[in-house]
Amino acid sequence: MECIFCKIVDGKIPSRKITETEKSLAFLDAFPLTKGHTLVIPKKHHVKIQEMSKEDNADLFEIVRILTEKMERFAPSSLVAIHNGKESGQDVPHVHVHIIPRNTDDSVGPVHSMFSKKPKLTDDEFNYIAEKLRK
Amino acid sequence: MECIFCKIVDGKIPSRKITETEKSLAFLDAFPLTKGHTLVIPKKHHVKIQEMSKEDNADLFEIVRILTEKMERFAPSSLVAIHNGKESGQDVPHVHVHIIPRNTDDSVGPVHSMFSKKPKLTDDEFNYIAEKLRK
Repeated sequence: MECIFCKIVDGKIPSRKITETEKSLAFLDAFPLTKGHTLVIPKKHHVKIQEMSKEDNADLFEIVRILTEKMERFAPSSLVAIHNGKESGQDVPHVHVHIIPRNTDDSVGPVHSMFSKKPKLTDDEFNYIAEKLRK
Repeated sequence: MECIFCKIVDGKIPSRKITETEKSLAFLDAFPLTKGHTLVIPKKHHVKIQEMSKEDNADLFEIVRILTEKMERFAPSSLVAIHNGKESGQDVPHVHVHIIPRNTDDSVGPVHSMFSKKPKLTDDEFNYIAEKLRK
């Protein structure tokens, strides 16, 4: 078992635990982007969200819901982000939800600011995409 | 009622619906960052995640879970992101989860790439932050 998040779950690597349930664990990111930056993970090893059971997913995002309120002890807003797969920038291949406190003085924009090449879609292309996702 | 997402829920503004439940709605973002970019919203008006009930939150993120798999019809990974409050870049003050298909050729990094000023925390500072979130 080489996954560092599994080792954190097992207590083999120390972490600053915030809260946990039978299924999920929240702890401070060791390399925070802002003060309060927290990770919420399922205790079972899954790479992507869609691999989790419905119940594990609900448990994970209930912790996220509760923690977004607590994040406001650090800043008035937060960014919740999941890199769902390595092509999106996922560094550790174990589902982890970032909750990052945000304020206007942190000079960071919305995630939209990262995308320099946005597609210009025709109505037909929009409809094709919608149809492909509806199936 | 001026909220454009409430108007989409009510059918007063058209949208390309992907799926819906009694509590949640998924539709294509009209200004996509990549092909397949989808928004998932609660039908009830809430600005932030923590204002939703536990049940509405679970319903919303169950749709997210199901859609992350479908997003792979467009790209192998996706970015799931929520601007939870205006200071984090939230444009429409109604909870919306972005699901953005991602591939390595879209020249976008992880959300970490947006943060130029990262805090360097001492052990004491980490412990203070953890204690503040545990309460």
